[in-house]
Amino acid sequence: MKFSCLKSELSQAVQIASRSVANKPQTPIMSGIYLHAVDNMLELQATDYEIGVILHIPAEVEKNGEVVVSGRYLQEVVRTLPEEEVKVEYDHDTKILKISSGRSNFTLLSMNAADYPQITRIKESKHFKVSSAVLKDLIRRTTFACSSDETRPVFTGALLELENDSIRMAASNVHRLAVNEGKIEENAEEKNNYIVPKRVLEEFQHIMSSEVPEEVAVSCTRSEMSFETEKFYLTTRLIEGQFPDYRRAIPEQFATRVQMKTADFLAAVSRVGLIARSSEYNTVKLIFNMGEVHISSDNPIVGKAEETVPADIDGEDVKIAFNAAYLIDVLKIVNGEEFMLFMNDSLKPAAVRDLEKQDFVYIITPVRTKN
Amino acid sequence: MKFSCLKSELSQAVQIASRSVANKPQTPIMSGIYLHAVDNMLELQATDYEIGVILHIPAEVEKNGEVVVSGRYLQEVVRTLPEEEVKVEYDHDTKILKISSGRSNFTLLSMNAADYPQITRIKESKHFKVSSAVLKDLIRRTTFACSSDETRPVFTGALLELENDSIRMAASNVHRLAVNEGKIEENAEEKNNYIVPKRVLEEFQHIMSSEVPEEVAVSCTRSEMSFETEKFYLTTRLIEGQFPDYRRAIPEQFATRVQMKTADFLAAVSRVGLIARSSEYNTVKLIFNMGEVHISSDNPIVGKAEETVPADIDGEDVKIAFNAAYLIDVLKIVNGEEFMLFMNDSLKPAAVRDLEKQDFVYIITPVRTKN
Repeated sequence: MKFSCLKSELSQAVQIASRSVANKPQTPIMSGIYLHAVDNMLELQATDYEIGVILHIPAEVEKNGEVVVSGRYLQEVVRTLPEEEVKVEYDHDTKILKISSGRSNFTLLSMNAADYPQITRIKESKHFKVSSAVLKDLIRRTTFACSSDETRPVFTGALLELENDSIRMAASNVHRLAVNEGKIEENAEEKNNYIVPKRVLEEFQHIMSSEVPEEVAVSCTRSEMSFETEKFYLTTRLIEGQFPDYRRAIPEQFATRVQMKTADFLAAVSRVGLIARSSEYNTVKLIFNMGEVHISSDNPIVGKAEETVPADIDGEDVKIAFNAAYLIDVLKIVNGEEFMLFMNDSLKPAAVRDLEKQDFVYIITPVRTKN
Repeated sequence: MKFSCLKSELSQAVQIASRSVANKPQTPIMSGIYLHAVDNMLELQATDYEIGVILHIPAEVEKNGEVVVSGRYLQEVVRTLPEEEVKVEYDHDTKILKISSGRSNFTLLSMNAADYPQITRIKESKHFKVSSAVLKDLIRRTTFACSSDETRPVFTGALLELENDSIRMAASNVHRLAVNEGKIEENAEEKNNYIVPKRVLEEFQHIMSSEVPEEVAVSCTRSEMSFETEKFYLTTRLIEGQFPDYRRAIPEQFATRVQMKTADFLAAVSRVGLIARSSEYNTVKLIFNMGEVHISSDNPIVGKAEETVPADIDGEDVKIAFNAAYLIDVLKIVNGEEFMLFMNDSLKPAAVRDLEKQDFVYIITPVRTKN
């Protein structure tokens, strides 16, 4: 194998690939990144069996070939190279990979490419196409609501639901639920749903950090899902199990509708929540009354906090308590300058809606308090 | 106690004070910050018995008084306040401290101010004055060389040596030594030396983050030292013991003098050092010969790296090996575009000098290698 390529492109690809390398590899080969030079293209692969990524960058390939080298060292070495031109050569006899740039020469010990569990692309599958902007918005507004409790695996991922040209994503940790919706461009199947691990969705966000929208081809089987653009192929195992019917958690009617300034309410809840943070349920109490909301918290070993924020209240006065973190999380992803909070009473689930994204909804269960 | 003050000033002072609050306080009162409002001034104190800090900020004091409140919560609450005007009031009956700003009201439980181990200022002492710029430069160029090995306490601090109008600071971990020198403005005593804990010197750097030089009054007894400016009083216990005579570690003559570009050599050593990092001594080998230095490292489980950098060599060729981190640390604090490396042979200590700071010297012991 012999090729040259640009440091910036190689470095970016290796950085992305190394995030899919297992933190605690079960066998040495799993600590590696697989490199394959062929047809003026360098392919990189990394996987930890749960998720996997394939990347391509342009390369001037003089001699085709493949090799596996330590992901950690490859990342550190490539990032630090002095010049934009990088020359890479693998010596099959000594099993050594040479990386040169400017006056710098590195040699890295290699592992046997034949031992590497190459990622198999999903072939027979249901598939659809979606804009990366739509997918990123779906992920950003839902995955934060996932659970990290591995004893209930379905809640550690997001439900992805397809129906004609609609794509919906829902995530919950039982106490709260976030649902977001978008449009897909091309859908080969009618109705289907999948539970996608939070980790791969976050990885997708990371790889797609550019603001420029791209078309993403999504392929799914019952056990796997892949996301593909011109530059990368990201694949994951799906979570088995049945995601509860989230629609039943969304109340149909509300007795009170409140409109508030997002930034003001977020700042006030964050401040008042400081005092509650070390208490059991991180509880802030809200009293909606007379055109304002009174926000308070009380921690017997720290002190108290209270603040009022103007609120446009339509309906019954409400006294309700929430986990401050559950409010803060959703207020951070609201785009609109103002947002809506819908409530019934102090015991029934409330809803948050973003005035600038009507098909997003967030359901939050109140905390029961003594008074 | 009742006063009002500016959020920005209070927040900065509380943030500094909270760094001197014990991480694991032995008694609850030690988790607190002491506040004392008197004469249009708010005084803050924090100490963990090893170091202590007193700060003053302007305040409109309506009623004098003192109180101790949780450092952690005070810091978080003050930082988050919505408006620049902050009102603080202590109710002696309920023992509650009220903090208000805009529409935000906090109450914090308090501790008994009488229980607080107030910091006693050093009175009978030797003392001198020095510009903060001089002191900061002394600290920046030496404390990185300290040891963190608590079994040899003298090396966990820097030696501060006074002689007439000179101030010298020296720090070592046995394998390397950094010595820097400056001028003091006013010295009441002739010759003296102290071992100052690294932690307080770093704290001084942190507090004096402004680029504007100020006069610092330093007071010393055999067991304590304090640094005082208009705004703060920082005090510390000194380290007991005898710092070895560092002058004996500085060779008088060198067979080889090399001048190199600081940034180029630093970048090359950093790169080549990557491969050595996980090996026992983090060793990079240097060969000075024919107008360049060949830098290499070799790690049997990772691979190799090598690079050459132009070097203006005056004297014998040298083959020598160093701990890469010990080179990188000093190259980061060299100001000059070029620096000097002085050597004798592969076993004798070498010296690094900064062309823009003649009275700084860094001694580094080579690593013995097999070939």
